[in-house]
Amino acid sequence: MNGVDFKEVKIGDGFVKKLQELNADVSVYNVYKRFEETGRFRALKHERDDAHKPHIFWDSDVAKWLESAAYILAARGDEKLKAIVDETVDDICAQQMPCGYFNSYYQVYEPENIFKNRTEHELYCAGHLIEAAVALKECGAGEKLYAAMKKYADYIYERFYVKRDTAFTTCGHPEIELALVRLYEVSEEEKYLTLARFFVDERGTREEPCYPWASRPYDQSHRPVREQKEAVGHAVRALYLYCAMADLARIGGDKGLEEACGALFSDIVNKKMYITGGTGSSYHGEAFTYPYDLPNFYAYSETCSAIALAMFCLRMAKLKNKAVYHEVFERVFYNNILAGESKDGKGFFYVNPLEMHEAAVDFNNGLKSRRHCPLPERVEVFGCSCCPPNLTRFIESVGGCIYGEEDGNIYVNQYISSETQAAGAKITIESEMPYGGKARVRAEGQASLRLRVPAWNAGVTMKVNGKRVEPSVREGYISLCCDGDIEISLDFHIKPRFVYANENVWQDNGRKAVQYGALVLCGESADNGKNLGAVRIKSLAGAKAAQGEYFTLDVKAERLKSSPALYSYEAPEPEPFTLRLIPYFSWANRGKGDMQIWWL
Amino acid sequence: MNGVDFKEVKIGDGFVKKLQELNADVSVYNVYKRFEETGRFRALKHERDDAHKPHIFWDSDVAKWLESAAYILAARGDEKLKAIVDETVDDICAQQMPCGYFNSYYQVYEPENIFKNRTEHELYCAGHLIEAAVALKECGAGEKLYAAMKKYADYIYERFYVKRDTAFTTCGHPEIELALVRLYEVSEEEKYLTLARFFVDERGTREEPCYPWASRPYDQSHRPVREQKEAVGHAVRALYLYCAMADLARIGGDKGLEEACGALFSDIVNKKMYITGGTGSSYHGEAFTYPYDLPNFYAYSETCSAIALAMFCLRMAKLKNKAVYHEVFERVFYNNILAGESKDGKGFFYVNPLEMHEAAVDFNNGLKSRRHCPLPERVEVFGCSCCPPNLTRFIESVGGCIYGEEDGNIYVNQYISSETQAAGAKITIESEMPYGGKARVRAEGQASLRLRVPAWNAGVTMKVNGKRVEPSVREGYISLCCDGDIEISLDFHIKPRFVYANENVWQDNGRKAVQYGALVLCGESADNGKNLGAVRIKSLAGAKAAQGEYFTLDVKAERLKSSPALYSYEAPEPEPFTLRLIPYFSWANRGKGDMQIWWL
Repeated sequence: MNGVDFKEVKIGDGFVKKLQELNADVSVYNVYKRFEETGRFRALKHERDDAHKPHIFWDSDVAKWLESAAYILAARGDEKLKAIVDETVDDICAQQMPCGYFNSYYQVYEPENIFKNRTEHELYCAGHLIEAAVALKECGAGEKLYAAMKKYADYIYERFYVKRDTAFTTCGHPEIELALVRLYEVSEEEKYLTLARFFVDERGTREEPCYPWASRPYDQSHRPVREQKEAVGHAVRALYLYCAMADLARIGGDKGLEEACGALFSDIVNKKMYITGGTGSSYHGEAFTYPYDLPNFYAYSETCSAIALAMFCLRMAKLKNKAVYHEVFERVFYNNILAGESKDGKGFFYVNPLEMHEAAVDFNNGLKSRRHCPLPERVEVFGCSCCPPNLTRFIESVGGCIYGEEDGNIYVNQYISSETQAAGAKITIESEMPYGGKARVRAEGQASLRLRVPAWNAGVTMKVNGKRVEPSVREGYISLCCDGDIEISLDFHIKPRFVYANENVWQDNGRKAVQYGALVLCGESADNGKNLGAVRIKSLAGAKAAQGEYFTLDVKAERLKSSPALYSYEAPEPEPFTLRLIPYFSWANRGKGDMQIWWL
Repeated sequence: MNGVDFKEVKIGDGFVKKLQELNADVSVYNVYKRFEETGRFRALKHERDDAHKPHIFWDSDVAKWLESAAYILAARGDEKLKAIVDETVDDICAQQMPCGYFNSYYQVYEPENIFKNRTEHELYCAGHLIEAAVALKECGAGEKLYAAMKKYADYIYERFYVKRDTAFTTCGHPEIELALVRLYEVSEEEKYLTLARFFVDERGTREEPCYPWASRPYDQSHRPVREQKEAVGHAVRALYLYCAMADLARIGGDKGLEEACGALFSDIVNKKMYITGGTGSSYHGEAFTYPYDLPNFYAYSETCSAIALAMFCLRMAKLKNKAVYHEVFERVFYNNILAGESKDGKGFFYVNPLEMHEAAVDFNNGLKSRRHCPLPERVEVFGCSCCPPNLTRFIESVGGCIYGEEDGNIYVNQYISSETQAAGAKITIESEMPYGGKARVRAEGQASLRLRVPAWNAGVTMKVNGKRVEPSVREGYISLCCDGDIEISLDFHIKPRFVYANENVWQDNGRKAVQYGALVLCGESADNGKNLGAVRIKSLAGAKAAQGEYFTLDVKAERLKSSPALYSYEAPEPEPFTLRLIPYFSWANRGKGDMQIWWL
């Protein structure tokens, strides 16, 4: 299936439009401000300042920010933003070496070590710069960086593929691979595809250096990629690699890669994914662990790995469409990804726990030497601030998830208010989602439609041009051939539903989450006080949804109240309790407190 | 209440006798063998070997082993053991410095740093050597070490109390304090009490050095001891200190110390103690954390801290008797402490988790850089092998928990088959505990008896000289005045009971443990396969107890079987399941696997 690129999609009024407005008005500027303050933009000028050395991956932070800005410029234009972009591009190009190489750390501090340290993110930074350059070109925001980064890519090709005189073959952090595919697709120059394939094919075929504490699965170098069937190691690295694998499987018709991608996707979504779409359950290596290991408080679930899973889903759909890819996209988008950002668009989470215990955080903060503990509130910038600009570029480009085309069929994969031209027809969507289940799809022109039926529906009602039609659903889609203009009213009945985890997930045994449409709900201390773990929900009957400052669902529940003793032979007494749930993505916007998703 | 010293108690046939036989026949020799192999005994000869430097607390390992051996020699004599003891004592005395100082690490490797490093366990080692010396003297196994260690104590008195020319005032690891009280009680020399009180009183009154990563609560130096009302920091350090505080409160009638001890005891048993009696819930600093933080898999619950809690209980009872001290002793003895040793007497746990997840351990073992993870099976010796000789000395001396005297009353605090002379009477106990609830107590002579009623009883039946008598229970004890010989048959009705944790313990919300008398039961994979977390027990009706190789309790339960999906809208289906429970202390004797205490 060909996805309809987000640049061909006009987002209409609704949930996503508001996200994008906040993104363009607030987030992108605030991220810029924090990156400016912390020296990330200054570092591009390559003025040596030993006291404030740039971090080895600062270039990638700026690059993702540039990519976000490019998308915003395409969607709405913004003189002020354009000026920052141009200056930034000028800075990069001014410091690029004649050979094409560019890296704000290595050029200034360790020029003798260029392409010598596999772990130090050089090609990762290059990849993000290439993506930024492609984005700017595609968005009509200038081709200066594109020319510069093509030159850089040529240099990488020369050194890594032709001469092979570098100290490592594949980068410790995948990213360059998918960036090169993007560069190939826009430039149509075969060498970039060759180089992408080379990096993917070489991975895991030999022992290459890694961090002293990490073993080969950490960066997916434990075996050749076609033999990788289980998701392992650093989750963002893994998913960026799998994205490139899916791209190459599609472009080359590479069955080995396709099979590996299918197995990896299945391993993730059936054994290693949080209900929020989060992946990478361990802070240790920010990594995938073993099947069904999904701790809630100590979840890592990095915002970047959630975005990377969304990227992988769309690539898998392009390779061979299945409804499940869009289901997982929907899950990770409306839950883990959106939780990465605060309501005001300024704060970000790197780690996205599924449970918060304020007492644990406070205790840990009181220690002289702290352990890993998730943050209870979002912050504006991190030392390693990969997630904020990843979110700003993701939100701006999310329209790419909506439509697809294949064999003359037009696919509607997500119900996000928008319009596009696809397969000769004009398609318009008006949607209540995620807070309601109704959507209207208009098609002008001849169109064979495939409308995805969200898995969370509790019934589907459809009208075509006002007339009730019984939908026939196949493989997760309603098929509808129509000649001329039609209006389809869809009602995917939405109601709060319990979700149960597989019995192998011991952290969730005996508990259930509440989902409302695509939204995983959570409860916070701000509404419910302490001891959320002792709240028991027997039924969702009579639960009341409301839309105020937050979407809320009030559920009749009970709280188990024990005797004051630490241990007792008496069973805890239930007392009536009204539990207020909000979307998981809305959590932690009202100060510190406890939060929980899984209920007794 | 005066406890009746274990040397005045003859253990009769039964559960504890078997433990002690295993201890004397196997454990004490096996610990010796491992300590010998690892160089702990050789190190006492002070032959410099830079490649195999002694650990800074090896002396304490040997000292605790000597204490164990002393008790065994008193109970039964053992020529072979006596020879090892004598040789070891000779080695120590031969290397003792003329001033009295002895330390196998500092004398050989850093003589210039004697009494300069507060964190390095010098006085902790001295304390254990003093305890060993007192034990050998009291057990009639020679006074050579006693004389030597008195000299060492004199030297410590001179340096720390008189001259005050050492680089620190209190030792980073409490132990010397309680050892000095013991030395005072056997020698009746006031200076040792003065020194013990000095160390306790000075603690927390000034900033003293600690590990760079630890803050002052870690070694209970955050405030003067009389102002300490919450148990904090390294659990063993804390409890050894509290033991000394309780001793000093008793000896000096010190109300400030008594109050602090009461508050600390209450904080521990009401907010920071596992159902097994384990304390110190965090591996990070092996420490107490915050109230109700009792993770099951990541429990630390060091065997030494369990022993230290038992020691604290007995000291609190001596200070002012209450049934609760014996209840907690019973809990920690039959559960956490006994779990510290394998069935064959050779293997030991340092960490005692309340849940085992084999997959987590296997995954962690596969990492190049491992995180903390509890061991799934006991080992014979550790790098830091404090627990094994602590267990061997504890088991040998456990008879001290049984009887007490106060105001002419004889207290029976634990029903362990034994006999003693107390307050002019001869008392004999025959008991089924912990596997049964019946006990027979015989008193010959005039006696005013106080018989503790275990809190787990589901009813009490009593006969005096064959005649049914309704017991009158006050403050946890049955009072019974008797003139002449009597036989009291007690039946504390035993049946499996659910135990619920306080609602603040989020790790146990919605779950319950099963206790059988004093025994906390657990289920293992060896009997029950995987996915123990999904086992639900609705009732204990019809549960069948049996005594085979292990005590077993078969419970009619169900296992929740989910759909194969990771997440599902369908509630998991229960399928009938017979859950076999065994005593927690019996776990991990049949290979690796999962284990669980808290059930749905």
